[in-house]
Amino acid sequence: MQIYADNAATTKMSPAAINAMLPYLREVYGNPSSLHSIGQQANEALTDARRRAAALLGCQPREVTFTSGGSEADNQAIRSAALLGARKGKKHIISTAFEHHAVLHTLKRLEQEGFEVTLLDVHENGLVTPEQVEAAIRPDTCLVTIMYANNEIGTIQPIPEIGRICREKGVLFHTDAVQAAGHLHIQVEEQNIDMLSLSAHKFHGPKGVGILYARRSIALTNLIDGGAQERGKRAGTENIPGIIGMVAALEESCAAMDADAEKMTFLRDRLMEGLAKIPHSALNGDAHQRLPGNVNFCFEGIEGESLLLLLDDKGICASSGSACTSGSLDPSHVLLAIGRPHEVAHGSLRLTLSPENTQEEVDYIIQAVTDVVAYLRGISPVWHELEQGKRDYILK
Amino acid sequence: MQIYADNAATTKMSPAAINAMLPYLREVYGNPSSLHSIGQQANEALTDARRRAAALLGCQPREVTFTSGGSEADNQAIRSAALLGARKGKKHIISTAFEHHAVLHTLKRLEQEGFEVTLLDVHENGLVTPEQVEAAIRPDTCLVTIMYANNEIGTIQPIPEIGRICREKGVLFHTDAVQAAGHLHIQVEEQNIDMLSLSAHKFHGPKGVGILYARRSIALTNLIDGGAQERGKRAGTENIPGIIGMVAALEESCAAMDADAEKMTFLRDRLMEGLAKIPHSALNGDAHQRLPGNVNFCFEGIEGESLLLLLDDKGICASSGSACTSGSLDPSHVLLAIGRPHEVAHGSLRLTLSPENTQEEVDYIIQAVTDVVAYLRGISPVWHELEQGKRDYILK
Repeated sequence: MQIYADNAATTKMSPAAINAMLPYLREVYGNPSSLHSIGQQANEALTDARRRAAALLGCQPREVTFTSGGSEADNQAIRSAALLGARKGKKHIISTAFEHHAVLHTLKRLEQEGFEVTLLDVHENGLVTPEQVEAAIRPDTCLVTIMYANNEIGTIQPIPEIGRICREKGVLFHTDAVQAAGHLHIQVEEQNIDMLSLSAHKFHGPKGVGILYARRSIALTNLIDGGAQERGKRAGTENIPGIIGMVAALEESCAAMDADAEKMTFLRDRLMEGLAKIPHSALNGDAHQRLPGNVNFCFEGIEGESLLLLLDDKGICASSGSACTSGSLDPSHVLLAIGRPHEVAHGSLRLTLSPENTQEEVDYIIQAVTDVVAYLRGISPVWHELEQGKRDYILK
Repeated sequence: MQIYADNAATTKMSPAAINAMLPYLREVYGNPSSLHSIGQQANEALTDARRRAAALLGCQPREVTFTSGGSEADNQAIRSAALLGARKGKKHIISTAFEHHAVLHTLKRLEQEGFEVTLLDVHENGLVTPEQVEAAIRPDTCLVTIMYANNEIGTIQPIPEIGRICREKGVLFHTDAVQAAGHLHIQVEEQNIDMLSLSAHKFHGPKGVGILYARRSIALTNLIDGGAQERGKRAGTENIPGIIGMVAALEESCAAMDADAEKMTFLRDRLMEGLAKIPHSALNGDAHQRLPGNVNFCFEGIEGESLLLLLDDKGICASSGSACTSGSLDPSHVLLAIGRPHEVAHGSLRLTLSPENTQEEVDYIIQAVTDVVAYLRGISPVWHELEQGKRDYILK
């Protein structure tokens, strides 16, 4: 049995998205900037894809910029807002301590360039509040950037409320919606979002393509200078097959969203319930205000990496944190942000489901994790010290 | 009949490249950063692709950075070299007047940031000389960036000689090889190239993916901050299917290079010969030192855009300049750079062949262009003034 439960890292492409791409890999190969009919065929597909993407997000087509993925979109959104702010002498940015590194590292670079960044504390339940944002906004704040749903613990932030506060205060609001798009109902206008990033491969679309939504009033700064593609804001021949595949996947995900969410929430809750029976374990992030497919636990006395490798031997693909930082020995900055001590943060497990997963698989995962945690504790010196009372349990 | 003769704008994907991609769109969907077996399968494919790309370019795998295309690679190469230069107080960059906009616009931004840029004049034949480069190098020069082959007129620059001079003078040398890769023999070590950009869709690979080669001693600056992908120099989940398709296409192009070049050179020369019979026309760029598939002519007294549209009606897909600037009313900066006056630069036609084109197609193109040029001249007020001696011919 092989069970893929790492859908927050990447997803298997949907057959519909692959089939949508194929004609653009094979027959409709023109460059949309070319005047001739083969180019114009590609250009029409691009225009149509932009219109459909805009309809799904609740914005205008000209507010959609196609990028090479979520990280590029995050970088461009934040750099654009920072530059606009700097022109008005506003060089303060608000974010949270548990953003994706595409946001945090961009902010770090901006700090080196003279910006001041406030990272809001995240509550133990993995949420920030609109009140925190309101209290942090200063006259020189140019941007608030807060993720829609966290990539490790899946907690869903109160985006429309944060957006409303930002709008009232005249501060731009960006949200990294890489984990949310295709999984939660996003309507940028209604939800007071000025800029939003998404990535196709997180909702069963292709890798290497994403969207930056930016309100029409926001002048974007190029990360990539050159040709006049994307209204002059993102140079480079457009990745037509990728864009077509992304929009097909987004349409499919949005159409099935409620049914998929219901199914995944059932599986998720079953999985959370099963894993909660493991002693000295704890769910990370709020039990309800989280993505339908996300489960994240800490198990005291073990190392997450060993857990992953043994689960892999049992055919289960999971993760200890974000894929983007795996290989690093540091504990997850997300788990530290919600107050987990280092020792416990090291023993984390993220299981992220798709609608393809089954109840049988979930039950298999529960048994496998229970067994592997018991085995690892059996050979763990730390666990023995805990059992012998030589150190205190952190997770009761 | 439909004849695609715009291969400098983009190419039709090769079936081998599509077939190489398909398993990575379908089955091998893991995130290479994931520790589990599905992720590691993707990671092995990535490692293998990097090794194969390096072998084709004559460099080491760790010198290959996968990007979203040629424009991104150009931007990152130039920005990286500029930053390294600035740290040593060297803020002078040498390039040419007929680079791609991904280079020229990046240089323009750097000028606004305090760099000084020397754009070498291009000779009438579309070439710059190593002597020009040598004469322009100053003690504060940090970068020479000169394209391998021009995207409009196809002229091939003396890259190894320019590279040798740069190396002697201790100046970094970057070349935009977007039009050359897969068409000319590139060996970065042998040819004294420090940094090189290429784009997959110019050699029958997929859109949305490219390579930045940078010598191991060069510390790249990120355009995209975030995760630790690409040795921390280019954040974002890797576009595995695109990368695999690109490398397959590059291998195929390189293996067939000599045979394809021979075939295309024959077709190109036949096409040039045929079009040269049109009175008051001129070939743009050197007749020999040019890409095997590139033909570029000016025809006096007509507008290139009308020419394109009428050729399209006859089933011929061609271009007047680079696809990236089509839609612009300005004449080609490349043709101006080689000394064509505005009036003549407006009447340009670029035909770029692939090995798929046939002699029959070439003969059809010659007849069609001859007919359409005659027709357009018949309705052109400018042409009538020329014929009546009210103005002088520029092209004799």
